[in-house]
Amino acid sequence: MSRDGDVIAHIDLGLDEKRHPGITGPMIYRPETAKPLNALAEALLRAPHPTLSPGERELIAAYVSGLNECHFCCSSHSAIAAAQLPEGADLVDRVRADPETAPIGAKLRALLRVAAAVQRGGRSVTGELVDDARREGATDLEIHDTVLIAAAFCMYNRYVDGLGTFAPQDGQAYENSARHIVAHGYGAF
Amino acid sequence: MSRDGDVIAHIDLGLDEKRHPGITGPMIYRPETAKPLNALAEALLRAPHPTLSPGERELIAAYVSGLNECHFCCSSHSAIAAAQLPEGADLVDRVRADPETAPIGAKLRALLRVAAAVQRGGRSVTGELVDDARREGATDLEIHDTVLIAAAFCMYNRYVDGLGTFAPQDGQAYENSARHIVAHGYGAF
Repeated sequence: MSRDGDVIAHIDLGLDEKRHPGITGPMIYRPETAKPLNALAEALLRAPHPTLSPGERELIAAYVSGLNECHFCCSSHSAIAAAQLPEGADLVDRVRADPETAPIGAKLRALLRVAAAVQRGGRSVTGELVDDARREGATDLEIHDTVLIAAAFCMYNRYVDGLGTFAPQDGQAYENSARHIVAHGYGAF
Repeated sequence: MSRDGDVIAHIDLGLDEKRHPGITGPMIYRPETAKPLNALAEALLRAPHPTLSPGERELIAAYVSGLNECHFCCSSHSAIAAAQLPEGADLVDRVRADPETAPIGAKLRALLRVAAAVQRGGRSVTGELVDDARREGATDLEIHDTVLIAAAFCMYNRYVDGLGTFAPQDGQAYENSARHIVAHGYGAF
């Protein structure tokens, strides 16, 4: 039983799940693991990067979360990407629908192909996919970070849905949360 | 090109890949992400836990890594589990071959079923699987940690194989590394 609200998740998180949706409930429930999970998101998605903007990195996260059909993570990181990309939500929607026809550069498109392979499984990333990305100008660091962002969201997505957490259907909730994360980052650590 | 050895991985890690196999190469290449990755492994697999021993948690990690066909992670965590379980490598082999017939308790078997569902995808974890685990005595914390260990290894496995890193075939290498990790933990942070 939940202490303050409806029981939705597979375990009792001891909080009002509607006020702490998605990954936020399990992070409050288990702060020992929340700390490195937040630190990883911060390092991958927001820390200074020589070539990939936070918006581009969030776009990779949103795209992989969509492939994993994780409503909470996909909505969250789509909103965070949209808030940081000059082209906004329309570009995020087009990438999620089909990166092959979305109006993005050839390098980012090739990196998204690598990310999609990672989502299927690590062994799906072929030398050809990596060579294609490199031919479009991708650096080793960009390939590394794309692989790890995609792999990390295969974790976050499974964590959120494997515990059956609550995902708001209202897009406004994700936009409000995105503004907070863009301003203040992932957790305090 | 690698500075000190053969090029094996999809990117140039700038080190002798045979001396730094699997995840260790990318962790040296990108210390900013290695730190939270190691901290997460430490919190999940080695930190004090009221009911799940380090050996049992490593067994879940080895089992999921086997399902993901990640040779490096499966060999590594099998050796680390074997070094910490009273029943040793024989039990690890039997669990990896078939948890349903392995000589383990009903609670751990039910948790491994949850872990296998997480490996397939977060949405594969049903209320029934969780209820079954709870009926066998699993606590909310055990269910939480099983879900997150399984999810985390869906990340580590994809990171290691998505970058095409070198995996030793020699079992002795994994046993040597396991002794070091059992004594000193995952990374310094």
